[in-house]
This record gives sequence, C-alpha cells and structure tokens, in this order.
Amino acid sequence: MKILVINCGSSSLKVGVFEIEEKSTEVFKASYEKFEAGSCSYEITSGGKTATGEAPLNDIAAALVALPRSLADRGVTKLDAVGHRIVHGGEDFRTTTVLDESTIKVIETLTPLAPLHNPPNLLGVRIAKEVWPNLPQVAVFDTAFHSTNPPRATTYAVPRTWRDAGLRRFGFHGTSHKYVAIRAAEEIGVPLRDLQIVSVHLGNGASVCAVNYGESIDTSMGMTPLEGLVMGTRSGDVDPGLFGFLSRQHRLSIMEVEEALYSDSGLKGLTGSSDMRDVEDRAREGDADAQLAIALFAYRARKYIGAYAAAMGGLDAVVFTGGIGENSPSMRRRICDGLEFMGLRLDHDRNQVVDLANHGAPQIQAYGARVRVIVTRTAEQLMIARETAAALKPMTSVPAPIPIAVSARHVHLSRRAVEALFGAGYQLTPAVSLRQPGKWAASERVMLEGPKGRLERVAILGPERPRTQIEISRTDGFALGIDAPVRDSGKLEGTPMVRLIGPAGILDSDGLIVAARHIHTNPDDASRLGLMDGTLVDVHIEDEERGLVFGKTLIRVSANAVTEMHIDTDEANAADIRISAEGSLVPDLSALAVRSTEP
Amino acid sequence: MKILVINCGSSSLKVGVFEIEEKSTEVFKASYEKFEAGSCSYEITSGGKTATGEAPLNDIAAALVALPRSLADRGVTKLDAVGHRIVHGGEDFRTTTVLDESTIKVIETLTPLAPLHNPPNLLGVRIAKEVWPNLPQVAVFDTAFHSTNPPRATTYAVPRTWRDAGLRRFGFHGTSHKYVAIRAAEEIGVPLRDLQIVSVHLGNGASVCAVNYGESIDTSMGMTPLEGLVMGTRSGDVDPGLFGFLSRQHRLSIMEVEEALYSDSGLKGLTGSSDMRDVEDRAREGDADAQLAIALFAYRARKYIGAYAAAMGGLDAVVFTGGIGENSPSMRRRICDGLEFMGLRLDHDRNQVVDLANHGAPQIQAYGARVRVIVTRTAEQLMIARETAAALKPMTSVPAPIPIAVSARHVHLSRRAVEALFGAGYQLTPAVSLRQPGKWAASERVMLEGPKGRLERVAILGPERPRTQIEISRTDGFALGIDAPVRDSGKLEGTPMVRLIGPAGILDSDGLIVAARHIHTNPDDASRLGLMDGTLVDVHIEDEERGLVFGKTLIRVSANAVTEMHIDTDEANAADIRISAEGSLVPDLSALAVRSTEP
Repeated sequence: MKILVINCGSSSLKVGVFEIEEKSTEVFKASYEKFEAGSCSYEITSGGKTATGEAPLNDIAAALVALPRSLADRGVTKLDAVGHRIVHGGEDFRTTTVLDESTIKVIETLTPLAPLHNPPNLLGVRIAKEVWPNLPQVAVFDTAFHSTNPPRATTYAVPRTWRDAGLRRFGFHGTSHKYVAIRAAEEIGVPLRDLQIVSVHLGNGASVCAVNYGESIDTSMGMTPLEGLVMGTRSGDVDPGLFGFLSRQHRLSIMEVEEALYSDSGLKGLTGSSDMRDVEDRAREGDADAQLAIALFAYRARKYIGAYAAAMGGLDAVVFTGGIGENSPSMRRRICDGLEFMGLRLDHDRNQVVDLANHGAPQIQAYGARVRVIVTRTAEQLMIARETAAALKPMTSVPAPIPIAVSARHVHLSRRAVEALFGAGYQLTPAVSLRQPGKWAASERVMLEGPKGRLERVAILGPERPRTQIEISRTDGFALGIDAPVRDSGKLEGTPMVRLIGPAGILDSDGLIVAARHIHTNPDDASRLGLMDGTLVDVHIEDEERGLVFGKTLIRVSANAVTEMHIDTDEANAADIRISAEGSLVPDLSALAVRSTEP
Repeated sequence: MKILVINCGSSSLKVGVFEIEEKSTEVFKASYEKFEAGSCSYEITSGGKTATGEAPLNDIAAALVALPRSLADRGVTKLDAVGHRIVHGGEDFRTTTVLDESTIKVIETLTPLAPLHNPPNLLGVRIAKEVWPNLPQVAVFDTAFHSTNPPRATTYAVPRTWRDAGLRRFGFHGTSHKYVAIRAAEEIGVPLRDLQIVSVHLGNGASVCAVNYGESIDTSMGMTPLEGLVMGTRSGDVDPGLFGFLSRQHRLSIMEVEEALYSDSGLKGLTGSSDMRDVEDRAREGDADAQLAIALFAYRARKYIGAYAAAMGGLDAVVFTGGIGENSPSMRRRICDGLEFMGLRLDHDRNQVVDLANHGAPQIQAYGARVRVIVTRTAEQLMIARETAAALKPMTSVPAPIPIAVSARHVHLSRRAVEALFGAGYQLTPAVSLRQPGKWAASERVMLEGPKGRLERVAILGPERPRTQIEISRTDGFALGIDAPVRDSGKLEGTPMVRLIGPAGILDSDGLIVAARHIHTNPDDASRLGLMDGTLVDVHIEDEERGLVFGKTLIRVSANAVTEMHIDTDEANAADIRISAEGSLVPDLSALAVRSTEP
C-alpha cells in the first residue's frame, strides 16, 4: 500500500509517502516551514535527490493544496490512504482510527486537552479530505500507545470533580516509543512481549516510556506535554506550589506562568539556548549555566530510568532516540554512568561511534552487561504509515462466537509444592474434568495467606506443572494484601511470594499473578478464525444494557486445546457475566507491535 | 543537657523535654489541640504516667504561657535551652541556628516560601522568648538536612528571573530523614558515611530522601510540601498544565486550585478519607476507589525508590518510617515487591511482626538479600533536642590556621596501569616531592580521554596504589564529557570509566572522581585541634572582599601526615585562591550524623 503521511503543526508541515510492504520504503519526503506572506521555505527529497528553496505558498493549507502537483511531478501517484498524526486522542481513541465526520467531531472536543496541537492537526485532516476526497483518512494518535497505562499510572491524586472532568495522565510521543521499542526487540532478537524496555526520547520535546512486555505502562509526559523531563523550552516536572508563589510574589497569572513553562523554560530557561549542541559547546568552555543544564537534563533522565525499572520490576534494555538521544554520546554516557548496580554498563567505544544509517539500532552496552543499551533513529512518519496501512486491512472474519469461561482463583502446583503441602509422595485426586483436554480440578484445596488476610479453599488444577503458579483476581490481591502483577501464564520472573497452607505443611512460593485474559485455541480453529499464536485481539461482549470490549487478549495456540476465552472474576463482574458467555473477535491493531517481532 | 522542644503548628502544639546524654531520655511530653473559646484538649506524659483532658486554654500562646507551671508540677525544672522546629530555613539556614533578633528577622522574610508553617513556628519562638527569657532559643529547620542537595536536584528548569526570586527545591521532613538514616546505620553497624540509603517517610505528609554516604542528595518534596508522593490530603506530583486546564474549563483561580491540592487531594481526593487505615479497610471490602488509592500511593513510592537508587548509583538500605511506613506491613510489601532485580527482597514474616518499641529498628529483608530494609519510628522531637544540644556546645578552639593546598587534576596508578601505559616492568620516576611525606609527582605524564575531548599531560602522583584513581575537577568533567561523582579518596565503587593514554598503550579504567575536599592531619595535630578521623568540619576562608565557607570537609588522620587541606581547582577559583591560602575551622554541627555511627 502507498500511504501519504501528514504531520501538520502550528507553523510547519511535514509530509512523507511510504510504500508499506514486507520492507517499507519512503518514496517522498517534504517539509514546509517559515510561512510568511507569499512565501515559505521547503525541502523535498524524492528519488534520492533533495531540493530546497522558497515556494510561493502563504500557509500550510496552500502547501497541502499544492502537494498533489509536487507528488505527480516526481511520479508519486496512486496513493491508497492518508495517515494523519493527531497529538491527543483523549480517552476516546485507544488505537488508530479511520476518520469520518463523527470521529472528527469527537476529536474536536479534545481541543481543551491539547489546545496548541490538535487544532492544526485537524486543519490538516480537513484540507486533506478536500484534496483527496476519495482516499481513506486515518488518525494515528500520539497518546494511543499509552492507552494501556494502568490507572495507577494515569491517575492524579486530585479531587474527584477534576478527575471526572477529564484530568488524568495521557502521555505523548507514543508513536516514537512504540517504533523504537519494536526496533530494539528486532535488534535483540527477542519478541517485544518478552522484554522490559525503557524508551528514552530526547529531542526538543523529551519523554521516557516504560514498555513492559510490549505495552506502555507509564510515561513521563502527563495530561500535557509539560510534565516530565527537562526539554528544549519546556520545564518538565515542577512543584505545583510554584503557581501560588509566582502569583503572590510577582502577580503572574496562570496564563503567564503556563506560557513561560512552555516557551521560556527547559534548556532555554537555564541557559538562553534551547539547542543542546549550543549548550554542550558552552559547557565545555566552562559556562556554569550550561554545565548545570546538562547535569540537570541527564539527572532527570537517569531518575526516570530507575523509576521505570522499579515500576516494571526489571529492565532488559534502554533505548535512546530523538535528536539528543541519537547524536550525543556524552549525554547518553552521563545518563547511564552509575547505573551498573542495576546491570547497565556502556561500552564507551561503541557509544562513541554509533552509526544510525539504514534504520540501524546498534547495541552499545558493555560486553556481558545484563541490560542492553540501544540507539536508534525514531521514525514516527514511517510508523504512522504502517499503522495506517494496518488499520485499513480487511477485518478478520469471525465466523463463530468465542465461548467465554470465568476462571475463579486457583493454583497450579509443582511436585515439590504438592509434597510440601500434602506430604511426601502425595498424589492429587482428579475430581472434575475441565473443558481443556487432560486438565482437571483436584478434590484437594489449599489456603493462601498474605499480610492482610487469607483466602480459604482455593482450587487446585492439575496436572502438576514444573513451577507453582497462583492465579488470583485484583480484588483477591487486596484481600491478601499483595500486589500481584498481570502476567501471561508461565511468565513468573519477579512475581510476588505468597504463603500456601496445606494439611501437611506450608510453602512460601513466588508465582502469584493476575492471569492476563487469553484465548485457548487449536491450530485448526486458529487457521479458520485467522488467529496467530502470540498475537492480541479485542473481544466484544454484547449484553442487553451495555457493550464491553476486552482489549489485548492473547491468543494461545496449542495442539488439542478447545477454543475458549478465559477471564477472571473481576473481569466477569465488569462484563456482568455470571458463569459463561460468548464474545466476538476484532483484531487489535496495536498487536502489530507483537506480530512484527514474532520469530 | 535538658532541652525543651517546641513544635508549634497552626492548630496544635507539641512539646517535649529531653535529657540529652550518652543515652537520651524524654522526661516530659505534651500535646495540645482542638483550641476553642476557653478550652483545648491535652495529653501529658511524664514519669511513666499519661494524663488527658480539657484545659481552660484559649490558644497556643496560652498553652505555652501555662507550660512552666505544668513542668514544675511534674518536677521538670532547670531547662538548659529551648529547641524550636522551624519548617523552612530557605537558602539562609543550612544548619541548626541559635536565634537572636536578627536571625528571627531573616526567618520572617522566608514566610512566602512556607506561608502555612513558618508563621506559627515563629509565634512559638516569640512566646518562648518571653516565657524563658534567659534560655537560649535554637531553631532546627526541616529543610537543613537537604542543604547538601546539589544544584541538579534543587534546580527547576524555569526562567532565570523566577530562579533569582528564590524559586528552587528545598525539601522537608529533613529532621526525620536524618534521624532514621542515623538509626538505620546504627542498626546495620556501618558508618552512615559508607551507606547509600533511601529514607521513606509515609505519614499524613510523605516524602522520600536519597541519603548518599551520609548526605541528603535529593528529596521528593520541593519548594513546597506539595511535590512528590501522594499524601493524606496533598496531591504530590501533578502536571503543571493542570492549572491552565482548570482555569479554562472551570474558571478556577490559582488560590482555589492550590487550596484543593493542599487540602482536598491525595488519599482524601481519591477516596474521601485521608486516613490510610480507613482506606485499607475499604479496599479489603472491594471499594475500587480505595484500591486505586493504595495502588497509586505504593506505586509512587516504589518509583521514587528506583529513581533515588539511580540518582545515588547504588542502594544499601531502604528505611520506612512515619505512621503508614511504621504500621502497614501490606503497604511496605506493595512498595517493595518487584524490586528484587535491584537486590531488594522482603522477609514476609519479619515484615509482618515488626516491633518498634524502645527505638527498635528491625531489619525485614530476606536472608541474604543485598539491600537491607529497615523499619523504625521517627523521633523528630528527640532529634531537635539533640541538634539543639549540639549547637550549644562550646566551639572547638582552633589554635592555628590550616594551610590550604590546591590539587590540580592528577592520577594515582596501580602497577597494572603503569605497565599498560608505560610498558612491562616500567617504574615511574619521582620528580617533585610533595608536602605529604613519601608522596611525589612523577616526571611522566598521561593523557585522559572521554567522549567530549582530552586532557593532556595530566600529572601522575606516586607511589603506586593498589587501585587506579583519577582525580579531576567538575570543569574537567565537562571537557571530557564524563560526569564524575564527588567521592572521598579510595571510595571508587561504581565510579565512571575513563581512557588513559600513555606512550606504550592505553587503559580504560574506572576510578574517575572529583575528590571531596579533605584535611590531612596526624594524631598529634588532630588531638591539639580537637579533630576526629572521619568527622566533618566547616572551613572558613577569609579574604578581603568576601568570606567563603567550605562545608562538609572530611578529616583524615594518618600517622605521618602533614596537616593541610586539599581542595580542587574549581574550589580554589570559587574562593579566589591562586596557589595556597589558610582557613580556620568551625565544627560542622551536622557532622553529628557521621560521628554518632563511628565504630
């Protein structure tokens, strides 16, 4: 497919045309800026040639209207769709979305959340609809990758009325974080779903993202792009008490403070220059302001890496991108030095000679270091083109509804655990056969104990497994007083301990999880349903009063499995399912992140 | 010494009398609150008996005026001094300070930084001066322990005019963080100066502090006590864009937003209750708001632990204190679970049965875990009494000025390094004798190389050492492009690598530091000057135009050392010292933190 990507800002326009195939290529690239009465400057690259100059274009609208001619002149024709970068998707848009009048109207309501960004983005959509009326227009949101952030990461501890009005963390740079996480996983040669990555995007805007087993779980920008790291002209994190202080001492208004935090802060506020290259040059010459700015910039990034490793409970890789992340070896080094206690150590020679040509993603950690460090150039336009193409693929047909089964809390025991709880040589007694062939519930029960309380008579499922695994609901976790992570079955690294109490003894075991919802299926059904092992789908549950979608549901294909979706009791309650129900499948577009790294 | 401690808040008064000796004891304790016309409620403990009731006292002033009688009734007489808790010391008060009219006037100028706290604190001082006109009045500041935070931790990336107006991070709870860090070091049996500790104070107010080798280097509260963790009624970290959003969408003023962030946010904003015990009870019953509040509270604390471990470049211990930190095993567990990747693992049984009686500080990490986890009851009043007593001890006499020598960048090489750089079997050539006996500068030089550039002809000091150590100034670090930490000589764990280039080869070695300033001395001089090995002193440099104090200067006593202070070239420039100078010693009161843990 041939996708036109439009990134329409307040004062500049960036355009790209991509052939999206097994290996994607950018066949046209243009940027327009410095619009004045009657002219703008442009740079166009196509067919290996770059042209720069002035064009008689008053504004962004004029540049877009003139684009078909520029494309045709260079032989770029037969576009299949237009992909638009939209900064803020709010709570409504959790994934890439094909635009029609009603979705555009919903995006317009999000303007209060991104007053500087969404209006120019939407202007681009409006004009593109006129210029290419027959092409699908697709929105790719900066916020969408972070839609998987759990409430603990998205919630501000503020009054309910404010939260009800929409005040929450969203995060930005999602397209970039998603792209570089995928590139890092490709480079490492391990599926993204098996990696814990911190993505560090350091450009004029800057943010950090915790990509935990393929999903964004936290990011440093919040409701607005002001929060988080020190940036070119933005402050990043500040004390909220600063507004009151500046109001009382200097009679500044909210708008004046906000404007200064957006435009006169960050590197610019510290040094007068928002360009890290200037700042680095001055620091080397002994300028104390520049030295402090660099120290502060690096320090904040280092703290976020530590915080997000703690948030994920582990760290496999740190990925640097963005102008500063890609081009400043000394900044990468300042950020990474001193993190050896968590297994992160640079190879300073590799760090010095990073080559990012041809989408390279070189590894620069020291030989044998546990944590990989990777540098790669971000490619938001390419990612927007890919997401656009994926959004337009015909939906997987779903010939049959999927049965849904509710899993109450239960344990799978190892041989060692059975003997610890029930005595040496003990064998569990199969009592009830389960739908999955060869699986059964035992007549024995076990008690779980945590710091807050006990769960009695918890079911034991057989047969035995090599490793003990305890599956509870989020609410069970509060009864026990233990925060169990959501995990796929079998992914037990770093999971909490819980005490199991049996008639013959007690056992403290790790392996306590909230099981991620999943669909068991067999190769025949999978092929019929168009499902692939390890991918994610959305499942729609219909009921009379309200619909509900379970996003990010993992497909698990195994030889003799019966096709069936498993959810836990909290999820069943949310969907008002008593014992069983049926759902229909919709492919999850963001599953791209996983598919692209499957071996 | 017998010290009266006064903690005078806006609506309550807490008082304690401590006998400060080798082992301190609290001989009187009282609190007064719920002041109404003609009455207040009180609780007084003395001689093992506690009395509670109503007293005919209108306000805090009346309670203070009535205090001498209450004390006399219980045989508590002959006070030596009054110690006051003062929340905000601003930039002016870096340590405990004996109050006179001029210092009180300076504290009054800090009111804009702490409008809710400092005025009642000062009211207490004013009344105490009238009630006990003959006793020294001493101020102990919540901010003072954080005065060692480096600029990278105290600076907001905001416009210069704002920073010049005093907008910076200060931090609070300093007395508590200092006390619990000292208690943790005592419990571990290692000097505080050798430990990297994260102190987690979780009460109605809550903050985290990175105590790096005995000094606070960062803390989660900032300019005001609003920043950082989720608290009882305060929001902690929020996006600064929240003010603009609430102004545009809800027409709220700065004062209205600030008031809500102080009083209607945090646990209260999330659940309606600011009391964690309520919230935990409700969570167990399935209340989703309470569950989210707990998850959010723990998550923020966990992220700060990760961030501060990264800030310090290592972690030896986490200390929990404050009402929630002391009393909620499940909250401690939620915060710590999942941090095993950085060596932190709880013993869940020990965590469950923590006993804090008699200033206990039990360790609750799992057997063999690299990071200790300690719980202890904070004792801010006791700490204020101790600091007050220390501030009143007669100054150490300083019979002679200390000579000061400027150390330019230099390296100490190991045998392996000499051979790598100069060839197998090579011996360095002593060229210039140094003042310290047996020490010399070699005629050979070496080149240092980092990602940003080189330093040529760097001096080599002999004799050889077991481990290579490279000492540079902060400015040299910017020339190299490497962020070298300030360290005492020999403390090289986790220090950065740098490339050394010699005529016969190159060597990449860790051990790059900015040497912490220090005073070499011998046992005779030390005894004469009243100095102890491992303690810290302040050194005053007099010059004609301006005085300068080098705080936190380490005393190093060794057999044949010549008494001499070593500073680096950046420090010399700051003090306008060309080659040598002299300074006079003043004991650093906060050195208590170190002394108390010396074996």
